[in-house]
Amino acid sequence: MSAGKPGFTPFKRLVIIGVGLIGSSIARAARKHGLAEEIVAVDRDADVRARVTALGLADRVTGDASKAVVEADHVILCVPVMANGALAAAIGPHLAKGAIVSDVGSVKGSVVRDVAPHLPKGIAFVPAHPVAGTEHSGPEAGFAELFVNRWSILTPPEGTDEAATARIRAFWEAMGANVEIMTPEHHDLVLAITSHVPHLIAYNIVGTAADMEKVTQSEVIKFSAGGFRDFTRIAASDPTMWRDVFLTNKDAVLEMLGRFNEDLLALQRMIRWGDGDGLHELFTRTRTIRRGIIASGQETPAPDFGRRSIPPAPGNVEPEKIR
Amino acid sequence: MSAGKPGFTPFKRLVIIGVGLIGSSIARAARKHGLAEEIVAVDRDADVRARVTALGLADRVTGDASKAVVEADHVILCVPVMANGALAAAIGPHLAKGAIVSDVGSVKGSVVRDVAPHLPKGIAFVPAHPVAGTEHSGPEAGFAELFVNRWSILTPPEGTDEAATARIRAFWEAMGANVEIMTPEHHDLVLAITSHVPHLIAYNIVGTAADMEKVTQSEVIKFSAGGFRDFTRIAASDPTMWRDVFLTNKDAVLEMLGRFNEDLLALQRMIRWGDGDGLHELFTRTRTIRRGIIASGQETPAPDFGRRSIPPAPGNVEPEKIR
Repeated sequence: MSAGKPGFTPFKRLVIIGVGLIGSSIARAARKHGLAEEIVAVDRDADVRARVTALGLADRVTGDASKAVVEADHVILCVPVMANGALAAAIGPHLAKGAIVSDVGSVKGSVVRDVAPHLPKGIAFVPAHPVAGTEHSGPEAGFAELFVNRWSILTPPEGTDEAATARIRAFWEAMGANVEIMTPEHHDLVLAITSHVPHLIAYNIVGTAADMEKVTQSEVIKFSAGGFRDFTRIAASDPTMWRDVFLTNKDAVLEMLGRFNEDLLALQRMIRWGDGDGLHELFTRTRTIRRGIIASGQETPAPDFGRRSIPPAPGNVEPEKIR
Repeated sequence: MSAGKPGFTPFKRLVIIGVGLIGSSIARAARKHGLAEEIVAVDRDADVRARVTALGLADRVTGDASKAVVEADHVILCVPVMANGALAAAIGPHLAKGAIVSDVGSVKGSVVRDVAPHLPKGIAFVPAHPVAGTEHSGPEAGFAELFVNRWSILTPPEGTDEAATARIRAFWEAMGANVEIMTPEHHDLVLAITSHVPHLIAYNIVGTAADMEKVTQSEVIKFSAGGFRDFTRIAASDPTMWRDVFLTNKDAVLEMLGRFNEDLLALQRMIRWGDGDGLHELFTRTRTIRRGIIASGQETPAPDFGRRSIPPAPGNVEPEKIR
């Protein structure tokens, strides 16, 4: 543990429940910046616990969440969204007075609904959603810099202790994140369009391409550099996490999907009727959005995402030329 | 010019008509590997010609395609798909006997239809489509290694001189590409699902996200790391090129789009009715495809495409930590 982030008073005992990509990244970042005097990692999966121990990610690793949270001043739930309710019910009675509970779920309305009722008085609940990640899962996939220059959205329910919210904000900022505060409802709408529907259509196009009979899977794979491969990254994300997202943010996802479908029908009609000007107009407009994302530092300006070092295919004619 | 690729007899005069991302990459690769004794670049846009001259991409730069092709033994049309017909009509009468004409269009049926009738007897037409590119356009965007380990698909019409096809195959292989031969019809179907429909839905989701009233554009940009930003890359591709693709590959695109929509409706229904198992099954299956693409060398295994060096946003709390 380092001496601690200047200006951030470390938590005494930070308990991270669920040590996947996000949980393990928090453990790494908290240790790197000295944000807790003791880090306790909890996972119900013995295999994950063994890997977390081997990776040395925490001061203590356990399978018993209820015991782990006793005397913790900060508990972060890092489990799939639908697992939060049962977890909160299990740990609720054991939480120390004054503890702050947070989470990292990609849906916030359902988490507030499922978790808050199980927390005793005197426990602050400050839900958080770090908008960061990769397509890889598990404790090996995490890294301390995952949250740097990414946004973490806090959605404290009405009446949440403001000092607790400020403390969680400082915690995320100490890990390098930018913080924004909004209502759970608005969060779920914003993420439906910036994350959930994109994942859904990525999963969908990859599924469609896998099910062709006139085009073989080998052809889909070979010629994926034409655009398809960009979609496969987010379609390789954790299935359980994403199942839960769609089941719990159903209304916002269906609303945004309705918009997407409406727009796609209009586009389909332009193609059918040969409306080249309409197509050109849209294709020009969409460039602006990418420029905005690059200018805001949320994307690299390098062509092709800066993809490099693609290993040669077996039998490739000139593998020595790959750079 | 180097001494020439071993085993490849250089063309005497290679004429590249249209010097954008692809045309300029061919010019660079042909020069790097000594694939032509003389490279002539043709562009109707004076500004592009000036830039090509400044970049030193060719031995000669001109705006007059008809004059340029006289005495050329290889002419490559590198213009938007719908421009090929008029271009072929213009250059047809001036082509030297024995010349091979090729192109790089993303749609092959329409190119064969539009170009072949304008070519005199004795001229071989070997259409090609290098499945490679970036979201950037123009002569500055090209690079000699663009085709390395990518596939170039040749679609010679029935009766094409086999020696000419072999020569074009060798040309692409000398630039580092793998070559596959198929009919124009099959090409257009394969590319509809691996490239055209992915581009269409990327353009569409970016358009949908830009038109929200409950979610601001600033929010879409901020929280794009949740998945949305992956789509913006291909939605930043050249509007004219893509307009032409959709107008000329209409039937295959509409067929594949129909599949996509059918599957998306099924997915939407799973969400509405809470079919978690169905969602989980699809989300698990789609991971396999990405693994195949990575194993084939068409994609990097690095998480997040290996995105790096994202510049800090103004006001980011810890810009010095970006790696």
